[in-house]
Amino acid sequence: MNVYKARREKIYDWMAQEGVAVVMFEDTEPRREPAVRWMTGQPGDALLFLSADRQSLLIPWDINIALKYADAEMVIPYTEMDRQALIAFRSALEIFKTPLGSKLEISPATPYPLFLSYVEALGDFDILCRDIGATQAVTALRAVKDGEEIAIYRELSQITNEMIDHLEEGVRSGKLKTEMDAALFIETEARKRGCEGTGFETLAAGSGRSFGIHAFPAYTAGEFARQGLSILDFGLKLRGYTSDVTMSFACPPLSKAQERLLTLTEKAYKTGLSLVLPGMEARNIAAAVDNFFGKARKIMPHGLGHGIGLEAHEGPAIRNRCSNDWILTPGMIFTLEPGLYDPAQGGCRLENDILVTETGYEVLTQSRIVRL
Amino acid sequence: MNVYKARREKIYDWMAQEGVAVVMFEDTEPRREPAVRWMTGQPGDALLFLSADRQSLLIPWDINIALKYADAEMVIPYTEMDRQALIAFRSALEIFKTPLGSKLEISPATPYPLFLSYVEALGDFDILCRDIGATQAVTALRAVKDGEEIAIYRELSQITNEMIDHLEEGVRSGKLKTEMDAALFIETEARKRGCEGTGFETLAAGSGRSFGIHAFPAYTAGEFARQGLSILDFGLKLRGYTSDVTMSFACPPLSKAQERLLTLTEKAYKTGLSLVLPGMEARNIAAAVDNFFGKARKIMPHGLGHGIGLEAHEGPAIRNRCSNDWILTPGMIFTLEPGLYDPAQGGCRLENDILVTETGYEVLTQSRIVRL
Repeated sequence: MNVYKARREKIYDWMAQEGVAVVMFEDTEPRREPAVRWMTGQPGDALLFLSADRQSLLIPWDINIALKYADAEMVIPYTEMDRQALIAFRSALEIFKTPLGSKLEISPATPYPLFLSYVEALGDFDILCRDIGATQAVTALRAVKDGEEIAIYRELSQITNEMIDHLEEGVRSGKLKTEMDAALFIETEARKRGCEGTGFETLAAGSGRSFGIHAFPAYTAGEFARQGLSILDFGLKLRGYTSDVTMSFACPPLSKAQERLLTLTEKAYKTGLSLVLPGMEARNIAAAVDNFFGKARKIMPHGLGHGIGLEAHEGPAIRNRCSNDWILTPGMIFTLEPGLYDPAQGGCRLENDILVTETGYEVLTQSRIVRL
Repeated sequence: MNVYKARREKIYDWMAQEGVAVVMFEDTEPRREPAVRWMTGQPGDALLFLSADRQSLLIPWDINIALKYADAEMVIPYTEMDRQALIAFRSALEIFKTPLGSKLEISPATPYPLFLSYVEALGDFDILCRDIGATQAVTALRAVKDGEEIAIYRELSQITNEMIDHLEEGVRSGKLKTEMDAALFIETEARKRGCEGTGFETLAAGSGRSFGIHAFPAYTAGEFARQGLSILDFGLKLRGYTSDVTMSFACPPLSKAQERLLTLTEKAYKTGLSLVLPGMEARNIAAAVDNFFGKARKIMPHGLGHGIGLEAHEGPAIRNRCSNDWILTPGMIFTLEPGLYDPAQGGCRLENDILVTETGYEVLTQSRIVRL
């Protein structure tokens, strides 16, 4: 059985348990749903209907893309549906011969006015739109990578690590002088090495801008890695999956305050990493790092990490919030990214991608704070 | 009065007419709402509350960014709201002293489960979430550019036109050989010329991939502008606003079928342009072009054009659909982008940005089909 069909089978099992007849997944602008790619390979712009009798119907915008990439029992171009999701939904119900009164589930991201129009148009059915439902079930499954995904991450991590080495070398040799030099070097090398591109817009912040968590604009023609602290946050995208690492560059002379930001960040990273173990509550790791920074009278203004995969941010969340109930499980891949930011001193962040193993963890990437 | 305050005043007027006490606009991932930037200058990641008594409260994620860019009567960091939109909403109501029972409006993009939680948490108020409401009012206003916006577009169009010339020269001279060469040249030159970056991911499709409307991946290390038809679709982003143009490159020898795709596309473009006039129904322009292609036994698989601004796609829609009721008005800026795509011959598209004037139109950009 191919990997996409195997993933769909898990959702069919869930549907049977829940008594849901048909689920619609919608990957369209502005509501992106990578679950469609996860279950079919279709890279974007499509509706996917799953039926309790274990049939899938993919409705892509671009049929040529679907024929090249997608796996599903049935594929029908969106143009044959008058390019309207409601018409597609009705067609799916006819094709599946779904009994009236059945439970149909739509995405919890469905806007309220659109939800009303579904309820009106499909009045003979029971429309479900809920946070704890099919999408959440897929999210939980996606957070634990399967064999194919871990293989992609091994390949992707190797490419990412080569990039990290080249970036350090390029900065040290003076070849990469500006934020733009660094960001576009990544864009170029990613594609040369077979990546689809970058997983998100590279953030390159020279020492004058590194105090921001997310620099705006993401990168400029300004200088990079000159005196003080600079941040380079990037991810490469391979067959849909993104890595996510942050290097920091420290160019002397540094103030004592800057040295302390670096040391604390490195220690916080080690503190977090030492706690990664299957069965661990993700919240507790984040809490330990927050406590570490608190003792040093510092505050980290963002979460400690997040899962990565077909999205740059997905489960598990590694945040210190009582609502965060993720438990680490072998196969999860997430970032650890402690950082400190000071309007006067600048900022630094250290971020790597971590795989949870049966016995602990494996650090997939080799990002670091580079002392120039 | 500054431009942002002037824009907010128009929404306050609308609120008074509609009897709405408070409107919340939310510009966060994954629900982006450029209306926040339009009304305050804040480039992203913020909540904006407008009150019927003509007060605005901006709640940014990054207070440093807000202090640098944003205009609002009150600015309070999101961290003071425990980083929760509901707490922010309650605070806004307290600050504004909004009477119980008042009408509060939230975005029509609000997911149904989230809508329910707002209704529950703000049960003492009347929560509105509707397609025809505050967001639609802002959308209609944003579709007609004001003086400041037209000035930005004049500057942006000039930069875009210089880029078009350099791209043609680069391809002709052999300096730009691959899709990546073209795409990264644009990224580099955009920033050198003071742009924030590109308005959307550049699509560079060499002759083997130009049959797709939107090439996937967007660009690769593969050859560009070799024998046959290649497409280059890009936009530059200046102070938040994006241009959007498509060049096509035709490299001989061409088949008769390829020559015909080019000629038909150019004629379709002229047909559409000749109909641009204030008072014209946008739908009719798109219908005329569809008819033109139909007579030639061709089908264009996408709309004729769309408004541009803080988003790459905004009002007015230039589509041939009965639901499209946009009427051209002086100050509107939109694309005209006829194109034809053939799995065997490849594709071509010609796209420029058009400003509606009091008496007709002005073509802001000078994109073209380049015959090599």
